[in-house]
Amino acid sequence: MQILDRIDSPQDVKKMSLEEMEELAGDIREGIMKRVNTIGGHLGPDLGIVEATIALHYVFDSPKDKFVFDVSHQVYPHKMLTGRKQGFLDSAYYSKISGYSNPSESEHDHFVIGHTSTSVSLATGMAKARDIKGENYNVIALIGDGSLSGGEAYEGFNNAAELNSNMIIIVNDNEMSIAPNRGGLYKNLKELRETNGGAQNNVFKAIGFEYCYVPDGNNINTLIETFEKVKNTNHPTVVHIHTLKGKGYKPAEEDKETYHWQLPGFLEQKNGACEQESYNSITKDFLLSKKQQNEPVVAITAATPGVFDFNPDFRTKMGDNFTDVGIAEEHAIAYASGLARNGAKPVLALMSSFVQRTYDQMSQDMALNNSPATVLIYWGGISGADMTHLCTFDIPLISNIPNIVYLAPTNKEEYIAMLEWSYKQTEHSVFIRVPAGDVISTGIKDTTDYSILNRFKLVHQGQKVAIIGAGDFFCLGQQVSEELFKYGINATLINPCYLTGVDEEMLESLKKDHSLVITLENGELDGGFGEKITRFYGSSDMKVLNYGSKKEFTDRVPLEELYNRYHLKKELIVEDIQKVLN
Amino acid sequence: MQILDRIDSPQDVKKMSLEEMEELAGDIREGIMKRVNTIGGHLGPDLGIVEATIALHYVFDSPKDKFVFDVSHQVYPHKMLTGRKQGFLDSAYYSKISGYSNPSESEHDHFVIGHTSTSVSLATGMAKARDIKGENYNVIALIGDGSLSGGEAYEGFNNAAELNSNMIIIVNDNEMSIAPNRGGLYKNLKELRETNGGAQNNVFKAIGFEYCYVPDGNNINTLIETFEKVKNTNHPTVVHIHTLKGKGYKPAEEDKETYHWQLPGFLEQKNGACEQESYNSITKDFLLSKKQQNEPVVAITAATPGVFDFNPDFRTKMGDNFTDVGIAEEHAIAYASGLARNGAKPVLALMSSFVQRTYDQMSQDMALNNSPATVLIYWGGISGADMTHLCTFDIPLISNIPNIVYLAPTNKEEYIAMLEWSYKQTEHSVFIRVPAGDVISTGIKDTTDYSILNRFKLVHQGQKVAIIGAGDFFCLGQQVSEELFKYGINATLINPCYLTGVDEEMLESLKKDHSLVITLENGELDGGFGEKITRFYGSSDMKVLNYGSKKEFTDRVPLEELYNRYHLKKELIVEDIQKVLN
Repeated sequence: MQILDRIDSPQDVKKMSLEEMEELAGDIREGIMKRVNTIGGHLGPDLGIVEATIALHYVFDSPKDKFVFDVSHQVYPHKMLTGRKQGFLDSAYYSKISGYSNPSESEHDHFVIGHTSTSVSLATGMAKARDIKGENYNVIALIGDGSLSGGEAYEGFNNAAELNSNMIIIVNDNEMSIAPNRGGLYKNLKELRETNGGAQNNVFKAIGFEYCYVPDGNNINTLIETFEKVKNTNHPTVVHIHTLKGKGYKPAEEDKETYHWQLPGFLEQKNGACEQESYNSITKDFLLSKKQQNEPVVAITAATPGVFDFNPDFRTKMGDNFTDVGIAEEHAIAYASGLARNGAKPVLALMSSFVQRTYDQMSQDMALNNSPATVLIYWGGISGADMTHLCTFDIPLISNIPNIVYLAPTNKEEYIAMLEWSYKQTEHSVFIRVPAGDVISTGIKDTTDYSILNRFKLVHQGQKVAIIGAGDFFCLGQQVSEELFKYGINATLINPCYLTGVDEEMLESLKKDHSLVITLENGELDGGFGEKITRFYGSSDMKVLNYGSKKEFTDRVPLEELYNRYHLKKELIVEDIQKVLN
Repeated sequence: MQILDRIDSPQDVKKMSLEEMEELAGDIREGIMKRVNTIGGHLGPDLGIVEATIALHYVFDSPKDKFVFDVSHQVYPHKMLTGRKQGFLDSAYYSKISGYSNPSESEHDHFVIGHTSTSVSLATGMAKARDIKGENYNVIALIGDGSLSGGEAYEGFNNAAELNSNMIIIVNDNEMSIAPNRGGLYKNLKELRETNGGAQNNVFKAIGFEYCYVPDGNNINTLIETFEKVKNTNHPTVVHIHTLKGKGYKPAEEDKETYHWQLPGFLEQKNGACEQESYNSITKDFLLSKKQQNEPVVAITAATPGVFDFNPDFRTKMGDNFTDVGIAEEHAIAYASGLARNGAKPVLALMSSFVQRTYDQMSQDMALNNSPATVLIYWGGISGADMTHLCTFDIPLISNIPNIVYLAPTNKEEYIAMLEWSYKQTEHSVFIRVPAGDVISTGIKDTTDYSILNRFKLVHQGQKVAIIGAGDFFCLGQQVSEELFKYGINATLINPCYLTGVDEEMLESLKKDHSLVITLENGELDGGFGEKITRFYGSSDMKVLNYGSKKEFTDRVPLEELYNRYHLKKELIVEDIQKVLN
């Protein structure tokens, strides 16, 4: 770390010789490896962008010149060069530096960014602000080839091309999205790589950009020369650099998908245990069984197959019955709707945080048409995640769209029954909130007819207090119920199954011998499931307490702390109940 | 109408000679003019696509071959050829046929469609379903040049290019979006037109499509020849046809923007009255005054300047301080965020129905960054609109995103004060729900400090019943209050101003001498503003009645009927109140 020691700000890079910068690249790689091996994080994309980041800081003058990093999967080297190297070298500082672009950490970051395909649009806004204020500097957007498949990126490119001023877009082409890229665009990138940028077909030129190609995007010298050429350009320019994802760490160079992101300890090559049953494995078994039955099933992912363990083996087995649409969630929903309307059986898996990219498609392309597609929402719930990857908003987002049926299974058997029902039925667009965590199994086949919408399950009939525990918070409901029992209260316990409506009959019947209803949901309270219950009882004597998360962006707050903050613990809830009852 | 009389289904087109088809085109135009002049609708795009629609039905075999129309602005000729001509020729049938693609009307329509940029994705799904089921027919997506700027369209193209099977995309290039097109893509379309499709730069070829160009897209013969050539193609193909928007009606050919859509009676050239003050004119005056003060204001629209009366005169006056990003709402939000983060003052105007396309951008690109942009939401509220253009969902959509401040002015002076505050402040992403309907003015300048968030205005202090009327439903609150007075109830009247939070202090104080709170909002109840109030009172003795619209897609249901259905009338509300109080 001899060279990195000398870097406190980008100014220090400018003083270096080429040899020193090459040594610096080694130090940065070491820092990336160390941090990721200790706390996990993005590995491949960061290892690939080291040289380009050094060259950018050598040529441009941040923060006067503005860098906007797409999705932040490649922001570690930038952080190390902009006063935050301790976040990589000293484990005491790891938690102080996030894995994403963050203006509260440094004046060299301009946005909090964690979702893909946004950098060109954001940078276009910055460039226009510069122009209208009569200022003069470079605005540089970085975007990976994977992120290019997102519609927002394209909207950005289309508009950036119209600027009559400086705008530089670095397309970091490492030949990979998280998984392999999908889409016609990538044939063009390949053609451009194979012709050293000279192919006749050139999507960037076609929409109006000046274009240059850097065949070895890990060569600092070439990069510097190229960036010097485009610096202070007075028109929109694309610099297409070809980099090696995972560079410097052989396993990551060879298995780019696996090493895109890693958990702590990957250097020690800890082997996972044998594959245990999980909601992922249950889903895969379901899909494979449909495939084996020659059903017209189509499993779909939007560039994150790993999240659902749709690994290469699974993908091979599914064959034509699997589609990765790339980072294109909007298309994924519309595509699923098209499949369903034409008699196929789409099952689309999306992370809660990324389904956010599709409200209009869920509403217009799918729900309005009642296209009988199945959409699985993963990871929905409160977590200690980075603020860009919270998964607490999917219930308000999805459940207030008319026509959609949003189901919340509480265990394995329910999940399978809901999947089977959703797959077979032809009348509704069905979303299922796949439980997080370990598989809970009752061992008893669920024979519920889910076509009778919004029928809650009365799991235990008690009195005075009724607890409605949705999805994976049904367990919390059970705990509260047990705790209440200690205080002599035999509470009613309800599994609502549906997040998109209320069982008016059951709620009405509770009025007879209950005075308090508790709702529990693993997500945001505002606009969520519980409020529907509360509204139902608004003009009655029934009292209602809603539990879930507050409307806020939390940033790497430990789950324990959030559970305390939101009173999501049996003791705290029972205390609240007693206050209301007394 | 001699020729159109003979058309009951597309089969009848196939029997016609070229001359007869040309005569048929005239009949179809007559029908379009008649319907639009009587009930309003899309004029220019439908007049331009007449010949292409005839040729498509001549060559292909609908409904076996599947046509998917983007946004449905060009679907009238198709409707006339598929058993629905009475919806254009006989005013008794006008209301039975919608202005949009609709499977419940005909087996020749496959989706309800009213938002842009969706056809290629939907058609890709249909094509994949065909392939996986081993079927054999053509899938044809139609998309206008304007719709090409939307990210979903691009995501669709990128994925469609990967099909190893039949897929035909007709790009209907009439050189216009609703207003002039914006973006680098359009330079390429121009280049292609000017080179008869032979330009080296070709965005469609670049991403992997076979491409052919039809210079006169209003020539039935050429169109038929071209469609015959691509019919049954086994790979994705783009047919770029150059058509004349508004063809056959001179004023529409000459002023394409004005005649994109028309109100009833346009043929009689009814002159509008002198421009009255409206919320549109107030907004424009505000923006122009900032421009005149050399402020770094940037007014933004996403291809619908006419909705806000951002007419050519206004655009000229705003000059560089105006941006039309094209149909690219996602980019519009991110662009506004970029502008705001770099010190400019963006004011983005969006229709409620189209802000639906931007949830993730509102959340990640804007709110997470607290970018101090102003976003104006127009037309929010319950209406008798087509089901694809409902504007009832923006409150649940926007108000449950953390950090956003969503304001609901009730009159002109509040609107101006909120605009001024939002414009000046630098801490929040502010959305303002521009009131619909006529301007209400108090004549008294509003001096409220809106930086104190979630402080409701106590307009009248009464007792027993408190009415919280949000935005343009504050008036309804006043009416209810007056009605209650007849029954001896002196109700409290509150203007909440904020849709994103509750005034806990005020709500708490109501507990003293009120037993019932009424909330009124012009939009969906589920996930909306009223539920926040209800949740606040959940564990208290306060009763709450929430008024707004039900979670449902309504389709051209008269407003009066909806108001009855939702009890949005003073008499009905007072009846409900009496039931709860007694």
